[in-house]
Amino acid sequence: MPSEDYAALLERIGRVKDVNSAIGLLSWDQEVYMPPKGAPARGQQLATLSAISHRMFTGKEVGELLDRLGGDTSLSADATKLVEETRYDYDRATRLPESFVQKFSEERSKAYEAWVRAKGENNFEGFRPNLETIVDLSKQKADLMGYEGSPYNALLEDYERGMTTEQLRPIFSELAERQSNLVERIAASGRAPDTAWLDTEWDRDAQWDFTIRILRDMGYDLEAGRQDESVHPFTTDFDLYDVRVTTRINTNNPFEAIMASIHEGGHGLYEQGFLASDQRTILGEAISLGIHESQSRLWETLIGQSRPFWEHYAEVLRQAFPEQLKNVSNDAVYRGVNKVQPTLRRLDADECTYNLHIILRFEIEVALIEGDLKVADIPGLWKAKMKQYLGLDVPDDARGCLQDIHWSHGSIGYFPTYTLGNLYAAQFLEKLLEDLPTLWEEVGAGNFAGLLTWLRAKVHQVGRRKQPAELVRDVTGKDPSSEAYLDYLEKKYGELYDL
Amino acid sequence: MPSEDYAALLERIGRVKDVNSAIGLLSWDQEVYMPPKGAPARGQQLATLSAISHRMFTGKEVGELLDRLGGDTSLSADATKLVEETRYDYDRATRLPESFVQKFSEERSKAYEAWVRAKGENNFEGFRPNLETIVDLSKQKADLMGYEGSPYNALLEDYERGMTTEQLRPIFSELAERQSNLVERIAASGRAPDTAWLDTEWDRDAQWDFTIRILRDMGYDLEAGRQDESVHPFTTDFDLYDVRVTTRINTNNPFEAIMASIHEGGHGLYEQGFLASDQRTILGEAISLGIHESQSRLWETLIGQSRPFWEHYAEVLRQAFPEQLKNVSNDAVYRGVNKVQPTLRRLDADECTYNLHIILRFEIEVALIEGDLKVADIPGLWKAKMKQYLGLDVPDDARGCLQDIHWSHGSIGYFPTYTLGNLYAAQFLEKLLEDLPTLWEEVGAGNFAGLLTWLRAKVHQVGRRKQPAELVRDVTGKDPSSEAYLDYLEKKYGELYDL
Repeated sequence: MPSEDYAALLERIGRVKDVNSAIGLLSWDQEVYMPPKGAPARGQQLATLSAISHRMFTGKEVGELLDRLGGDTSLSADATKLVEETRYDYDRATRLPESFVQKFSEERSKAYEAWVRAKGENNFEGFRPNLETIVDLSKQKADLMGYEGSPYNALLEDYERGMTTEQLRPIFSELAERQSNLVERIAASGRAPDTAWLDTEWDRDAQWDFTIRILRDMGYDLEAGRQDESVHPFTTDFDLYDVRVTTRINTNNPFEAIMASIHEGGHGLYEQGFLASDQRTILGEAISLGIHESQSRLWETLIGQSRPFWEHYAEVLRQAFPEQLKNVSNDAVYRGVNKVQPTLRRLDADECTYNLHIILRFEIEVALIEGDLKVADIPGLWKAKMKQYLGLDVPDDARGCLQDIHWSHGSIGYFPTYTLGNLYAAQFLEKLLEDLPTLWEEVGAGNFAGLLTWLRAKVHQVGRRKQPAELVRDVTGKDPSSEAYLDYLEKKYGELYDL
Repeated sequence: MPSEDYAALLERIGRVKDVNSAIGLLSWDQEVYMPPKGAPARGQQLATLSAISHRMFTGKEVGELLDRLGGDTSLSADATKLVEETRYDYDRATRLPESFVQKFSEERSKAYEAWVRAKGENNFEGFRPNLETIVDLSKQKADLMGYEGSPYNALLEDYERGMTTEQLRPIFSELAERQSNLVERIAASGRAPDTAWLDTEWDRDAQWDFTIRILRDMGYDLEAGRQDESVHPFTTDFDLYDVRVTTRINTNNPFEAIMASIHEGGHGLYEQGFLASDQRTILGEAISLGIHESQSRLWETLIGQSRPFWEHYAEVLRQAFPEQLKNVSNDAVYRGVNKVQPTLRRLDADECTYNLHIILRFEIEVALIEGDLKVADIPGLWKAKMKQYLGLDVPDDARGCLQDIHWSHGSIGYFPTYTLGNLYAAQFLEKLLEDLPTLWEEVGAGNFAGLLTWLRAKVHQVGRRKQPAELVRDVTGKDPSSEAYLDYLEKKYGELYDL
């Protein structure tokens, strides 16, 4: 029999989540359907609802409920965990003074505007003072939140709980070394696949139908979710039974939409996979961005760029595009999907180069927050590292250090979760193949039931009951590491490029 | 220089409106894009946000601000009006005790479920007890709100401010007599137009493009709004610059979508037409449902079912559907659009019969609220009146008194606004033709700029500065009456059916 306090906490959190769902819908709509002139009002609506949600969650009644429930030994294990997780969020939400939150929010808005302009004009100087302010405020935030070791750890905590700079450094430096080396060897092999067959027109509707077909095959429930189009694909959820993904269609390259849909579908399956009994509670939430990204990247790259996958789906795609693919073998499709080509833009990066983009950003962020780098010196360092890791000359800052939105949003500490997602995914796959040795045959038949069942049980249904590193350890028996991912990459691309 | 109190009131109301916009978006999404399994969570989200909005608006700080501002003689005329209108809403919102609001809300939910079931099973008895409760609560609500004359006036006030049962009775009884008579004469004429040409397939996309074309021609700003599809067409707004309409496409009859789009476009133009300086304030709102409906019906019927309109748009439609319309003259299209045919369903009614459906409901509602009719006697009375007004035998209650959702929603007093919309529209048109004698030539050229300019200045931009009857009087020089509408109907249909 749950106590009155516990019921009151659930009710309060449920209502906060209702407001957050409305915020989610306002944001989703902004990206997919809002008419352009609606933007200023939408900004106001979002600000009002965010303030309401913050106030509802950080009210002292919540603190009092948590104080009383913290000592309640009659609670079940789940209830105890729920109280602990709520306490964790409550403490972090209340540790920053309202004046600081307000100031940070205002500076972020200014920085975002300055960044849009600076990027358009290829003028880093136009963004430099704003980024300096963001870095200063991020350092202050680290001090207010508290940390051990590097101050960057306080920022990481927002995106990847429990992860530290000290843990990431050796992992990332090994990745940087071996992935750069791999990219060099691939370039030296001179075995770039011929993808001239891609240069034609690919019908929008046929692409759309193909992405819906794949989402269905993956097990994504379209009665409890939907797909729409947006400029930048994303996943959002308003409830366990309303999880939405978006994709982006390029009529010159069908693999943009296909890969975007599989990636977001991976995120969506995580959100659709929480326990029904955790619905509208804090336990029915993703534990971290890295774990979230492990789900999207597992589906997108480890499964969706695998040979068995394309042995099956090249045939399906050929039915949709008989003319375009009549002289293209399944093997050629597989090789085309896995073409390695260093790029200036992170968003264009392939499996072999993606982490290098992230590591570069991580190193710059840590140096900024630890005080070893001035904002004014970012462009030079960016160019040097792009040359070192990817062998590329950066022609200008617009295609260099101004390319990402994250810093203007104040999201310092976010980038590493992209790479952690890749690493966790490879670790999960290694274990998955032990538990489900027929995985590749199943994937080769377009059958993902075994895979999804495993992910549901091992990852999705855990919700917030375990922290990211704890989850990885419990599932795989190992700490987060680069080993599985590097083994995977070197084996796959060694074969593909005959290294 | 506005006072601090005035600025505080604007800020408070602005935030309430932000929350209401989020409620609007949640409701819009529910009708157009929400996946089916998302319904229960959506219900919770709507309940939470409605409670927040109500509490924000009825807080005692608002009352204190209004008290102080009510005596502030330094305010401008607009500011004074804004305070008065806010006071009006505040008083009405605070007059019902929270326990009553809660009870009514619960009973409405139960009544809605019972109605859906009862309608499906054609079993009035299954809905009767719930409707009795709704009627009882509506009577209690009337007592709590206060009224002069009929208690029904207190309910009318929610939808059509200032309108009374005493004013409506003679207007409606004249309408009933003359419209029934007109319908009888049309039936007796034996001149029903041949609409066999409609019985073919009408492409969805071509219909969609045609409705968008008309919306654009009307002056609806698609950068500040959009059209989607829904089962029941509606208009909603989240801001002056985000006003959305929906339509419904029937591939067996293109005029359903066309008329729905023009109707909702008329509502949408009203919402897009408030003054920019009234944005996010209570003055930038529709004054009543009747005035709102006057805008939709003016565009849909008086303009969109006129001969000049179809002299122009039959050509445009023929370009979209060359096969379907190759042997159909513009005159035949015009006659087809205006076919008169008594129907059991209000939603299928044409211009000549629509008000008769409304008057029947009005008479039943008034008798229920004044205590002259028992709920159990509704089915019998419904059948008698359908026979009297429309000459139809009602085969069952599902197609009779169970057809509308309104009573299950507790919306007693709403129906009359549909007919008032027709009457106001005809009164506006009469005046408009004096001010803009070239109207029909312009409409015949697909040019609505003069019409829209007139509506903007005379109706839209007034917002809530005038009450409905006051607006009608100020624009037309006459009180609300049935005269203009009956003249219009008898002239138009007299010609069409050669009476």
